[in-house]
Amino acid sequence: MELHDLVLQGDRRAIARLITLVENGDPGVQSSLDALFPHSGQAHLIGVTGSSGSGKSSLVNQLVYYLRREEPSRRIAVLAVDPTSPFSGGALLGDRIRMRELAEDEGVYIRSMASRGALGGIARAASSAVQILDAAGYEMIFIETVGAGQSEVEIASLAHTVIVVDAPGMGDDIQAIKAGILEIADIIVLNKADKPGIEAAERALRAMLMLVEPNQEWIPELILTVAVEQKGIAGVARAIADHKRYLTRSGKWDQKVAERLKKELDNQIQTILWQEWKNRLEPGYFQGVFDRLVKRQLSPNQAARSLISQFMKWNE
Amino acid sequence: MELHDLVLQGDRRAIARLITLVENGDPGVQSSLDALFPHSGQAHLIGVTGSSGSGKSSLVNQLVYYLRREEPSRRIAVLAVDPTSPFSGGALLGDRIRMRELAEDEGVYIRSMASRGALGGIARAASSAVQILDAAGYEMIFIETVGAGQSEVEIASLAHTVIVVDAPGMGDDIQAIKAGILEIADIIVLNKADKPGIEAAERALRAMLMLVEPNQEWIPELILTVAVEQKGIAGVARAIADHKRYLTRSGKWDQKVAERLKKELDNQIQTILWQEWKNRLEPGYFQGVFDRLVKRQLSPNQAARSLISQFMKWNE
Repeated sequence: MELHDLVLQGDRRAIARLITLVENGDPGVQSSLDALFPHSGQAHLIGVTGSSGSGKSSLVNQLVYYLRREEPSRRIAVLAVDPTSPFSGGALLGDRIRMRELAEDEGVYIRSMASRGALGGIARAASSAVQILDAAGYEMIFIETVGAGQSEVEIASLAHTVIVVDAPGMGDDIQAIKAGILEIADIIVLNKADKPGIEAAERALRAMLMLVEPNQEWIPELILTVAVEQKGIAGVARAIADHKRYLTRSGKWDQKVAERLKKELDNQIQTILWQEWKNRLEPGYFQGVFDRLVKRQLSPNQAARSLISQFMKWNE
Repeated sequence: MELHDLVLQGDRRAIARLITLVENGDPGVQSSLDALFPHSGQAHLIGVTGSSGSGKSSLVNQLVYYLRREEPSRRIAVLAVDPTSPFSGGALLGDRIRMRELAEDEGVYIRSMASRGALGGIARAASSAVQILDAAGYEMIFIETVGAGQSEVEIASLAHTVIVVDAPGMGDDIQAIKAGILEIADIIVLNKADKPGIEAAERALRAMLMLVEPNQEWIPELILTVAVEQKGIAGVARAIADHKRYLTRSGKWDQKVAERLKKELDNQIQTILWQEWKNRLEPGYFQGVFDRLVKRQLSPNQAARSLISQFMKWNE
């Protein structure tokens, strides 16, 4: 039986193996992804982002536990794209116990992916992993990223619903990053609500929220939680369900899906153009042009145009 | 007189105008960049990266002031690619006084660039801005970035010499990021050396340094500073000069220049391929393929290949 058939049957080892092949950039993987694609598009994708100090892994942990008990037939996957995530190994003791329960739950699939690598490479791999989990029948897929850079924002924007997690006492750096990331938030969780500085943090967040598109139909909801004590988790679960209903009713669900596919198509085109280009390059000709670049007889732009016109033409 | 002729004469307003055109992605700018390119390649490019809490802007500030007094004929430029940089407006009082002195110094050119925008776009714009300043005759160009993501690392790697700035008391997040960024460091500055926790921070850095390629010819130097009190600045200036001598003697200077040009050529090729592709796309044909993608009759990869074969062919 082919690997993708096993994935469609929900075989956990087949899923793990296919995601590893995707991570390694194995070229043979494309036919499996093509075969799985028609079966994807059912899952609710939920991006969870925020700095690692915010406790977003604990939140995901508790949310999955809650959602499984609320509806035991619902299968849930977690994709942690964050080297500092406890899902990647560094869990606190309390989390670890809960995570062991999750790990033994057949209805839950947890996977971490390394986030170092080529620019855009991880976004592409995460996108394929999500497709695999979607085709394998997971109804909710949490995608956890550390909200520190452009590619993390890109990964989060794959999701139908984006949760941004914050906590009191984060540094100024995080504040600057946060302003950018709040723009993509559908739900904002202010975690560690039992810690000092919570009032100031809430005030600051509400002030920032006022600046982010005041007239939209869905006003991002701000929810206070203490994830490690399971406080506020039900509220987040309810907000996720509310947001899904809003997306479906308003037609935004289909719109988001189309946007995501458009972005993925663009990525694929860029990747293929670049790879095919590299495959066709003659080292000798390239070296001649490159030498003239190093001597500054050609500018980078002039060198690029000269190489491109040598190796391809457009169908006019 | 053409804009690029004015830039070659060191006209500050012409420099500012050309960099703004680059930032705005003005298509007419390419001919100026092409004309300037043969005059570039002289400057020592120094990347300075680290989180904003590390005081890297104060360090650059004091370094430039020191280097100008050490050698008054030497012209220096600062390119701050960091929205949280004091050079972009948020300076502390002490810094602001020093920065005013720098701002009135005809031998110093300071410019900040926004770091939000298209993925890779800022790296490209920064690279062009550096070329402009280089052609305009600045002998040392500091490129300041906030060390939080892939594109910042990419910008820093433009430089001949990379300085990573750290300080005691930064969060765990920063630690995780730091491990990645230390790999590109030529000089490591541990700033705020008068603050509590300095011994632990130094120990942690030295331990991390042991893990980063132990057998290289240039061992990254660790220097303690208190930038706001001008302590340790001379040591950093000396390390920069040492590193330049090392690069020249070992042949690494030319090697780094070639690597940078190769990377820039690759970027140009990718950009041109993508832009030419978009220019030629027929909306109707694209929509037909995209509709089949949304219906999941084609996978993103299949849709991309179908579109590419329709609009271009390779010279075999």
